[in-house]
Amino acid sequence: MDTEENANQIDNEEVIRVTHFRNLSSMSAPSQEELNSIYTDDCKSLLSSVRRRVEISDEKIEPGSLNVLSAKYESLDYDTCENHLLLDEERKKGYKFVVKKNLARWFIFLLIGVVTALIACAIDISIEELSQVKYASLSQYVDHYITEGKLYIPYFLWVLYNIVPVFIGATLVAFVEPIAAGSGIPQVKCYLNGVKVPRVVRIKTLFVKSVGVVCSVVGGLAGGKEGPMIHSGAVVAAGISQGKSTTFKSDFNMFYYFREDHEKRDFVSGGAAAGVSAAFGAPVGGVLFSLEEGTSFWNQGLTWRTFFASVISTFTLNVVLSTYHGVPGILNFPGLLNLGQFERFSYQIYEIPIFILMGCIGGFLGALWNHLNFKLSVWRVKYIRNKFLKVIEACLVAALTATVGFLMMYLINDCKPLGQDPTKYPTQMYCGDGEYNVLASIWFQTPEASVRSLFHDPPNTHNALSLGVFVVFYYILSCTTFGLACSIGLFIPTLLTGAAWGRLLYVGLAHVLPVATLVHPGKYALIGAAAQLGGVVRMTISLTVIIMETTGNISFALPLIVTLIAAKWTGDFFNEGIYDTHIQLSGVPLLPWEPPPLVHNVYASEVMSHPVITLRTNENVGHIVELLKLTTYNGFPVVDPPITDQSEVVTYGRIRGLILRSQLIVILQRKLFNETAEYWDTVTASIFRAEYPRFPTIDQVHIAEEEKTYSIDLRPFMNPSPYSVLHSTSLPRMFRLFRALGLRHLPIVNDTNEVIGLVTRKDLARYRVWHHQGRMGVEELLISKEL
Amino acid sequence: MDTEENANQIDNEEVIRVTHFRNLSSMSAPSQEELNSIYTDDCKSLLSSVRRRVEISDEKIEPGSLNVLSAKYESLDYDTCENHLLLDEERKKGYKFVVKKNLARWFIFLLIGVVTALIACAIDISIEELSQVKYASLSQYVDHYITEGKLYIPYFLWVLYNIVPVFIGATLVAFVEPIAAGSGIPQVKCYLNGVKVPRVVRIKTLFVKSVGVVCSVVGGLAGGKEGPMIHSGAVVAAGISQGKSTTFKSDFNMFYYFREDHEKRDFVSGGAAAGVSAAFGAPVGGVLFSLEEGTSFWNQGLTWRTFFASVISTFTLNVVLSTYHGVPGILNFPGLLNLGQFERFSYQIYEIPIFILMGCIGGFLGALWNHLNFKLSVWRVKYIRNKFLKVIEACLVAALTATVGFLMMYLINDCKPLGQDPTKYPTQMYCGDGEYNVLASIWFQTPEASVRSLFHDPPNTHNALSLGVFVVFYYILSCTTFGLACSIGLFIPTLLTGAAWGRLLYVGLAHVLPVATLVHPGKYALIGAAAQLGGVVRMTISLTVIIMETTGNISFALPLIVTLIAAKWTGDFFNEGIYDTHIQLSGVPLLPWEPPPLVHNVYASEVMSHPVITLRTNENVGHIVELLKLTTYNGFPVVDPPITDQSEVVTYGRIRGLILRSQLIVILQRKLFNETAEYWDTVTASIFRAEYPRFPTIDQVHIAEEEKTYSIDLRPFMNPSPYSVLHSTSLPRMFRLFRALGLRHLPIVNDTNEVIGLVTRKDLARYRVWHHQGRMGVEELLISKEL
Repeated sequence: MDTEENANQIDNEEVIRVTHFRNLSSMSAPSQEELNSIYTDDCKSLLSSVRRRVEISDEKIEPGSLNVLSAKYESLDYDTCENHLLLDEERKKGYKFVVKKNLARWFIFLLIGVVTALIACAIDISIEELSQVKYASLSQYVDHYITEGKLYIPYFLWVLYNIVPVFIGATLVAFVEPIAAGSGIPQVKCYLNGVKVPRVVRIKTLFVKSVGVVCSVVGGLAGGKEGPMIHSGAVVAAGISQGKSTTFKSDFNMFYYFREDHEKRDFVSGGAAAGVSAAFGAPVGGVLFSLEEGTSFWNQGLTWRTFFASVISTFTLNVVLSTYHGVPGILNFPGLLNLGQFERFSYQIYEIPIFILMGCIGGFLGALWNHLNFKLSVWRVKYIRNKFLKVIEACLVAALTATVGFLMMYLINDCKPLGQDPTKYPTQMYCGDGEYNVLASIWFQTPEASVRSLFHDPPNTHNALSLGVFVVFYYILSCTTFGLACSIGLFIPTLLTGAAWGRLLYVGLAHVLPVATLVHPGKYALIGAAAQLGGVVRMTISLTVIIMETTGNISFALPLIVTLIAAKWTGDFFNEGIYDTHIQLSGVPLLPWEPPPLVHNVYASEVMSHPVITLRTNENVGHIVELLKLTTYNGFPVVDPPITDQSEVVTYGRIRGLILRSQLIVILQRKLFNETAEYWDTVTASIFRAEYPRFPTIDQVHIAEEEKTYSIDLRPFMNPSPYSVLHSTSLPRMFRLFRALGLRHLPIVNDTNEVIGLVTRKDLARYRVWHHQGRMGVEELLISKEL
Repeated sequence: MDTEENANQIDNEEVIRVTHFRNLSSMSAPSQEELNSIYTDDCKSLLSSVRRRVEISDEKIEPGSLNVLSAKYESLDYDTCENHLLLDEERKKGYKFVVKKNLARWFIFLLIGVVTALIACAIDISIEELSQVKYASLSQYVDHYITEGKLYIPYFLWVLYNIVPVFIGATLVAFVEPIAAGSGIPQVKCYLNGVKVPRVVRIKTLFVKSVGVVCSVVGGLAGGKEGPMIHSGAVVAAGISQGKSTTFKSDFNMFYYFREDHEKRDFVSGGAAAGVSAAFGAPVGGVLFSLEEGTSFWNQGLTWRTFFASVISTFTLNVVLSTYHGVPGILNFPGLLNLGQFERFSYQIYEIPIFILMGCIGGFLGALWNHLNFKLSVWRVKYIRNKFLKVIEACLVAALTATVGFLMMYLINDCKPLGQDPTKYPTQMYCGDGEYNVLASIWFQTPEASVRSLFHDPPNTHNALSLGVFVVFYYILSCTTFGLACSIGLFIPTLLTGAAWGRLLYVGLAHVLPVATLVHPGKYALIGAAAQLGGVVRMTISLTVIIMETTGNISFALPLIVTLIAAKWTGDFFNEGIYDTHIQLSGVPLLPWEPPPLVHNVYASEVMSHPVITLRTNENVGHIVELLKLTTYNGFPVVDPPITDQSEVVTYGRIRGLILRSQLIVILQRKLFNETAEYWDTVTASIFRAEYPRFPTIDQVHIAEEEKTYSIDLRPFMNPSPYSVLHSTSLPRMFRLFRALGLRHLPIVNDTNEVIGLVTRKDLARYRVWHHQGRMGVEELLISKEL
């Protein structure tokens, strides 16, 4: 985007707007004719413009470009369509149905909690068992072959042990379900924001995700299982709440009344919370995560049910895991906390600046990490497009991980006496008898276990050199890993990097300050981990609570919060969080929390797409079919037939309602024409639910030539009172409407309520102030407007 | 309300609606004439109806009646008025101003945190010091006079010690600022919901509240300081953010750009959070409290700043209190936790049902408490209307509290050997040497300290009889106390009651189950306390986190959550939470989270008040003055002059904007008439801010007779694009608009965008389904519609 050019463009607009304003203040009421002349000029080129649009959406989009919003995503429709069918149903079923629906909701949230937890347990236990086998044998082989001087044998074995599972995982992801790559959090975030990311909540995705994450973690990649667990929770929620599976073509005829975007979204936010809760044992953190990352309009009832699902999820997980750990029934067994139980470290007021400083370091390192990962991702989008290449890349990174680990163990001889390290398989390597290699014990376990070690290993377990080298390499490794075609999350490797440099800092501080006041290196490891994670993902309140819950430590709330705030501010100075970066990279039209500043003088008439294609209340079938085939629009305002007066100026139809493409297709499919009428008694709101969420395309609907002369009365089906605003409404005002109510389409009307345009989510998502373009002075003008 | 009659009424409406629906489904488009005839019939009686309305609002409302919504509350306006003055300002000041405003916001939140914490510290330390003096002397006197058999001396002393502070506190509340009575949480909740409770965020209120709460708690009333601290936080936030004090008539000319309802509300929600944070040392709980109880549309930026204020508040509090406790700088000194640090008790899976049962008991006891308190409050509203009576009542309750305490100590001889109780002033009473009276140690301290005792006293400290008697009397006392003309909260007494019966339950369970598995009675005291509090206030997620944070115990999250859910469900089966009950009792038109069920077929045309009084874009001054004097309306749609055609049917003006009473008054006051023009250059958006929030009344504005012939152009001042909806919009749809966007007025337009009615917050708040009327079958129909 040429900054200079854009600035000029906006400057011109500003002039125009000032003029416009002067006009108003000098009391000349804008006349209807004026408006008509503005909007009707281009009205005659209606069909040609439609065709042009179709072509545009087929164009290739330069990958990696941030300023172009992709046309490949559809939005979700969170606004309830209160058509007559729905009212009819409501009246027939009465209050009992309301109660039943409510009970069903609670029941579904219960199921979501249980199933999410069970999947999490399965992932957890698989990873633990397989990793134990892997690392126990590696440790033995190392100690066996080192005496024979054949260390290359365990090395190759390690590479093999890494490559095989990663190959399986990457193949699944690349060939079966590419959307299952990565942590899944960006995708869930988009879904909750209102963007339909294709295939994100399907059962196939869940399968690939679960198996994939086991493979990736067992394969030794620098990643964790937490992100995928959250995504799993979301899929489980979407699946259970619909009472049917399109993948398995089975319909249980349950919960059919929840088959709409709005209800489904609520369940998905519960599922995501249950996922967090299962991943970290953090029910409150789960709710806050859903809140911070997700939904726009939040209500008490939903919070409350989300919380319920989270609690059930932790509960189920704890029951299963306490049994697995051999302490059935003891639900607050400290071993169930992922990152181990923290003792109550004390801290003093003069440590607060140290924590803030650590937050800044974390923010800076996180921002750098994000930047590197962004560059790498752009490179990947450009060059690693072939599926085979993706699998090979993943395997190479797996091999690289083993190599780095091996070299570190081999070259740095960090020996400590046995007996004080909680590691399961002490590896001797070149250490003396009664000693073990510290780096081997860090590498020969899952990253999660390594975080635990760094948090809880006694002081002096790790020396500065090993920590320093480990930080550098793990930083690079984790950055390389995120974005591979593997389903793997970034929470754990980021925490690990942070914990390592936090401990390193402790070693440094111990030279300056009396060791007694520093209490324990684990404290600094924790703060470092939080700072690094905060710098990468930029979450605050949910992250604080998650870390508090996962370490079982509450007295550390204040230092954690201070650190995370410092990390976020430092990071935000440079760039956006990693999830937002990846969301922008894939061109998802995410609606931010607030409208951009200084756009009060941008009006609906400038934002809206026009001319708009409208339908009449009684519309010809052939016309509808043609429209659906020619355009890709998803919502059509329904209007009274526009009056064509003698002077050939086309005036617009008065708004009557709004109908969706999906509804039109169902109507066509069911042939609910006026001419073949008699249908009224049998038609209920469930005809739309039966097809939800995968409506047929217009090409799958067969309409006979004769039928094309028939007509359809759209009134019983359309949304009879869509929110609509005047052409003079400002952008922030529309923005708030979209954000708070989860709208997808907003018809724009003129003074007499005639539809003159349509604003969609995407039209608004386009307006963003691009920070960090280097030039501060221009920043306020950098509003990206390209399609 | 006569249930039967109401049911009939609604039945009729249902018939009408069914007919209406049939009409539509048989495709007869509703004609414009039809609509006109519906709405214009009563249009001619415009002025008379206005007069009638004024009279109605002067009528006395039968106190205690729940079905009548009071006219005494105004709503707040959370919708930004994007008039030309604002746009002008925005354009002039540019992006730098956005940054400046944002920095100022953070700075204010910082101040809010610090000041709230300092006030909390002052309250805390005053209470602690004064109580120590009081109870130390009482304890000595008891042990001194008991040997002389003159126990009536310490008794009368106790009564005196109670009455004197309570008298001061109650006098302040009753005569100086009655709104400072009670906990203040209902008032803050109303404010955040969008109802302007008069004088709730004034400095005078803060003063009375702070001094009052010290008096009440020192006076030994069964109450706590937590609720008032939350209210204090809210007042501090409202005060600081405005940069001026109308009470002290001083304007610091700071932060003038935050002088509007919307910005102020954001700060108040931060202040409430900071208050919770200071009261309980629970920053995360504070944010969740604001979230659960407060704002409707929540965004990330605000959450984030609220969180910041909470953290700062805890931090400041900890710094001050750690110094006070003699451990300066050690910020996680366990003594800073209000309810004491919990060890990590373990629990087992078979205890979960016990916790759920306790939740149910708590829910039931809480519901009963609410019911009794409701009845008592109604009685108070009816009979204790005189200010002197209120003070006398408070003093009587204070004396009663001392009497109950004294009788319990005197009659129940519960002695335990010295040395195992953490009480500061062991009183011997009739116990043997080396023993102390347990009940005396419970009574001779603040309720908060008693909660700590019940949580942490070793097993066998309390016997079943003392606990049982204590529960019964404290339950009644706390119920009597809440609603007195004292500023005092209910968190602590409720926790205390719950902790007592929780411990009692432990004594019972210890007979059945092996004591080893029960671990410690403190566990049951905690669960009982949570259950009781949950049953009374019905908060869930915020309460869980608050209790977790205030006890420093995280491993107990699951049992707490389970208990609180059980308590809420049980309680909700009987009635509403105590805050909601009190809000309804005072007739505040609170907007619930969700629209009532089954009202999709109630349309805007039925809800709106009509005829509506509109103003023309160029309006006569005399007309405006007369309107403002005659009516009490706060918002007027601005329309193009309506066209009066020959047939004498008044058609309506087309909507151009919306103007508020407050804006009109400022315009009149500044005499911004067209005839005296030349004003444009000097008029900025700040003219409205200068008067905010206490705008003059119309009677305070002097308009000369000559000026009444002048005219005003309203367009530069009005909100040029208010949200408006069609007459056919359903109630839930309007509800969501109001709830999500914080609207106050919603003009209703007909098909050609002419204003035919106006819906206000109150019109919607009127629609509520009344639960628990005894008859389940009728419940769905019981929609209260009375004014």
